[in-house]
Amino acid sequence: MATNSNIPRAVVEHMVREQIYAKMGLPLPKSASAPNALVVNVSARHCHLSPQAVEQLFGPGYELTPMKHLYQAGAYAARETVTLVGPRSRVISNLRILGPCRDFNQVELAYTDAIALGFDIPLRLSGDIEGTPGCMLMGPNGFFEMAQGVIRAAPHVHMHPDDAAYYGVRHRDVMKMKVHGECPVTFDNIVVRVDESFSLEVHIDTDEGNACGLKPETFCELNQ
Amino acid sequence: MATNSNIPRAVVEHMVREQIYAKMGLPLPKSASAPNALVVNVSARHCHLSPQAVEQLFGPGYELTPMKHLYQAGAYAARETVTLVGPRSRVISNLRILGPCRDFNQVELAYTDAIALGFDIPLRLSGDIEGTPGCMLMGPNGFFEMAQGVIRAAPHVHMHPDDAAYYGVRHRDVMKMKVHGECPVTFDNIVVRVDESFSLEVHIDTDEGNACGLKPETFCELNQ
Repeated sequence: MATNSNIPRAVVEHMVREQIYAKMGLPLPKSASAPNALVVNVSARHCHLSPQAVEQLFGPGYELTPMKHLYQAGAYAARETVTLVGPRSRVISNLRILGPCRDFNQVELAYTDAIALGFDIPLRLSGDIEGTPGCMLMGPNGFFEMAQGVIRAAPHVHMHPDDAAYYGVRHRDVMKMKVHGECPVTFDNIVVRVDESFSLEVHIDTDEGNACGLKPETFCELNQ
Repeated sequence: MATNSNIPRAVVEHMVREQIYAKMGLPLPKSASAPNALVVNVSARHCHLSPQAVEQLFGPGYELTPMKHLYQAGAYAARETVTLVGPRSRVISNLRILGPCRDFNQVELAYTDAIALGFDIPLRLSGDIEGTPGCMLMGPNGFFEMAQGVIRAAPHVHMHPDDAAYYGVRHRDVMKMKVHGECPVTFDNIVVRVDESFSLEVHIDTDEGNACGLKPETFCELNQ
């Protein structure tokens, strides 16, 4: 059974803020009146696999073992990892699989990873993999050849329709995110993804997270 | 003898723009009237060494061999590289030495490199290395122990006093740089370094360069 992930610091701060204003009998300031705390997480390189790919890599009938729940409901980091073999036979070991399985196969790398492997990969939204490079994956039961699906995921924000209403945005809009702290950076193209099942969370990759030196306590602002 | 580096694309474009306006008999628009083209370069991980460190690593009397001239006058990438040994005996091979020699030793890594090695390194201006972590370097003649000097270099812009006057900034001020293109990003803290010997050039590290997907043709703007 997977462990519950810790509650993100931004969520705790959001709840504390609400409580303090309520106790003081004061209305929440505009900046604190968002329906949900803004959680920003760095996605390290990972892959999403189909049930068929999992069986080919790990054996007939094999199913992924949840290791850690992620912030989006139902999503988890699996205990299983694979080895990615790039175009010049360079490899990345221990590429984490994120579950549950999907109906397509996709590897998400930062450009730094891709350059180390010798890949030239495009910036795409998750799932938009037509015409992207492929790769070989290696598991304990054998190889799986992905004809396409190696991408750099465009930075994006998952949000519930309530969040979209608060920020005044719609599915597929782009927003800016200012990251404060020691190496302040503003990401100008954060793609909005709206779904009833989503919790408010920005996903950036390791290059983006390291460029701005993101830490759990770093203050981030999302704006149109 | 070192080869001459190519003229950066931004410099060629700047010259062409000036020529076209002159030919058309039109005054240059404000945006094109900067004294120099804005050149933005990514600094991959590298080190600066003292003559003593070079001798200890490569042998008595050894001097660096320039391989490629860099954009700043006199600076070059040396043919020589060293192996960096981190705190958990993890290594990075082929760490490029930049010449000429300085009177201190400094290793500049991106956070992605530092995390891979197991380092916790601070963001510092070049030369400001008091109290920073050290490391071991390995060359064909032996080891050299650096007691301190492993940093992430703060993003910065070299400029001549003419450029500083045009932008209305002084040494040690900070500026913003907007990088356009597919993954637009604004870096909010570009530290200004002014010197008579400097050419206008922004240096960002590989995390920053990969986060914004910087290419030779990417349009960048520097603002106060």
